[in-house]
Amino acid sequence: MKAWKLWMALTATVLAVGCAQIPNNTDGTIVLQDQGSFAIGGSTVTHDGIFSREHFLAPDGQTAYGDHAYVFYQIPVNAKAYPLIFQHGGAQSKRTWESTPDGRDGFANIFLKAGYSVYLIDQPRTGEAGLSTVPEDNHPFSANPMYADKAYHELCRLGIFPKLFEGSAFPKGDAALEAFQRSWTPYNGPLDNDVNAAALGALFDKVGDGVLITHSMGGTIGWRTPFVTDHIKAIVALEPGGAPFIFPKGEMPKALPCIYPVLGATAVEVPLESFMKLTQIPIVMIYGDNIYKSNSAVGPDKWQTELDMAYKFADCINRHGGQAEVIHLPDIGIVGNSHFLMSETNNQEIAQVISNWLNEHGL
Amino acid sequence: MKAWKLWMALTATVLAVGCAQIPNNTDGTIVLQDQGSFAIGGSTVTHDGIFSREHFLAPDGQTAYGDHAYVFYQIPVNAKAYPLIFQHGGAQSKRTWESTPDGRDGFANIFLKAGYSVYLIDQPRTGEAGLSTVPEDNHPFSANPMYADKAYHELCRLGIFPKLFEGSAFPKGDAALEAFQRSWTPYNGPLDNDVNAAALGALFDKVGDGVLITHSMGGTIGWRTPFVTDHIKAIVALEPGGAPFIFPKGEMPKALPCIYPVLGATAVEVPLESFMKLTQIPIVMIYGDNIYKSNSAVGPDKWQTELDMAYKFADCINRHGGQAEVIHLPDIGIVGNSHFLMSETNNQEIAQVISNWLNEHGL
Repeated sequence: MKAWKLWMALTATVLAVGCAQIPNNTDGTIVLQDQGSFAIGGSTVTHDGIFSREHFLAPDGQTAYGDHAYVFYQIPVNAKAYPLIFQHGGAQSKRTWESTPDGRDGFANIFLKAGYSVYLIDQPRTGEAGLSTVPEDNHPFSANPMYADKAYHELCRLGIFPKLFEGSAFPKGDAALEAFQRSWTPYNGPLDNDVNAAALGALFDKVGDGVLITHSMGGTIGWRTPFVTDHIKAIVALEPGGAPFIFPKGEMPKALPCIYPVLGATAVEVPLESFMKLTQIPIVMIYGDNIYKSNSAVGPDKWQTELDMAYKFADCINRHGGQAEVIHLPDIGIVGNSHFLMSETNNQEIAQVISNWLNEHGL
Repeated sequence: MKAWKLWMALTATVLAVGCAQIPNNTDGTIVLQDQGSFAIGGSTVTHDGIFSREHFLAPDGQTAYGDHAYVFYQIPVNAKAYPLIFQHGGAQSKRTWESTPDGRDGFANIFLKAGYSVYLIDQPRTGEAGLSTVPEDNHPFSANPMYADKAYHELCRLGIFPKLFEGSAFPKGDAALEAFQRSWTPYNGPLDNDVNAAALGALFDKVGDGVLITHSMGGTIGWRTPFVTDHIKAIVALEPGGAPFIFPKGEMPKALPCIYPVLGATAVEVPLESFMKLTQIPIVMIYGDNIYKSNSAVGPDKWQTELDMAYKFADCINRHGGQAEVIHLPDIGIVGNSHFLMSETNNQEIAQVISNWLNEHGL
């Protein structure tokens, strides 16, 4: 055997042994013990008046259900101890975690094949959980038609519209870009992070101990869900931002300035007692590439303030005795990633970073 | 062996041999070759003006994507030749076909275990396909909060609110009733059956030959999808109604009268050439129980006119050379079913009726 072949074989062996993502069978299929869906959490509101069959379409005396999350779950055979519960970001749904824009396995399939039970939610008032007990407000993410293709492309750091950044890991071609644009879905009611956290907490209470994985604006839902449930064993936050980080009263840091002030990272104060919940579990925040580009594109401008705030947030958790960290992917040699790092051509590599982190923390 | 035990054993053998619904493995698990999701069909609309980064949230010069369907698919190993493509009804989503209100297997799992590939859609402008190129209208199913619990309970023939009909096959208990009420999701744009049929047709064109299964208001989408694709091999329509049946020009029948005129069955004329598409494939319409109750409840009142129209529709198809039939479940000894017959305690039995019909037609 030539030296380079020996080296390749050894490397393959090391990778295979070191790799935690062993599919739950060897032929690429998925073997499920069970799958299904349900609604969790929520509330009701009843309209004044008396119901009559003559006017059965009138609201009088009828009750509206809403504010629940929709949950789709899949349990593989021989599932690992802790399920992964996935919270999507703004104007997204559980689609975030399913097939990539070019039709490959997303994080749901990748982690399922690695033996994790997965729970995908549509947060309250969106997707298949569209019922709300409160009427829509004028949130930009409830607008329909949603004229935002250029904003999404740039805010999500795909590149400068209509191009991708040089070296982008996003799937190439018009079909993938169209799939990305069609992946959004509007809100059917006001965005209320406490309502969302209540439903997510109810899910953890039903399922038991598990790991929370959030994306983007879902991050802030994740930070406050430990206030309402003790079943979160760890949080993996993918590019948290676009919604407030939390800090104890009196410890609020300043956000870095940015070109477009509306894009600056935000934070809110919470009681120290609540904040301390975040010091009880390991937390990792993972950010992609093209954040520090010095140009006037809205994406890099926004995400340099968010990443800076993430470091300050981690510092604050750790100074109170917690164990939070930030992984900026280019720092560990993983480059080209946009805000949708779970959708990209190197998403298996990023899943491996998460898997390794979970293993390191015994999860 | 006692005589009755021998009879039981023989019966079990006959049932096992005669039963088409053999799970794709013997331990109740589901073995998937593949699963994933994508958007299909749709259109775009571009706003006047010029996009500027300074006002990246403004619609100017930006394009809105919408009117696509969301599709979640699962392919079992050794899948049967023809996939089942499921079109939900009004204010529903693919949840219709997932877990029942009491958490048992819905039609998606049942048919997957029987070896069928399943494709579940959220129709355009709802659920996870909430983007619309046209603003919302005032359709009752886009109202949020949706004050309609009593209307839904009665229209869907669960019973007289808050009770179930005597002998109802609907899952018992408050938790199941709450799950039913939380299964709805509002429209994010105008209901447009041609837009919906276009997306569904695009799905058939992508997937190839398959069987369409519709529910309720999804029926009318099903009747017009053969206008735009030649890949529908059969239609199984579960309680079509609440949206127009179609008839050739000049052959429109009268609907039966009903107590609440707004509930009367409806029909629209289409060119004979279009209608003839429905004569090229086998079609079955399946209706549940409690349709002919002579009381003032809105559900029985509505569904007696719909079932009557279904018979007239089948007659019209057959008189033009087609092969359509109506199965009124009580006529074959299956009783207690509401409008959501896929969700009920006897849903395995109803799936068997469908499975038998598919087998009889070589599908």
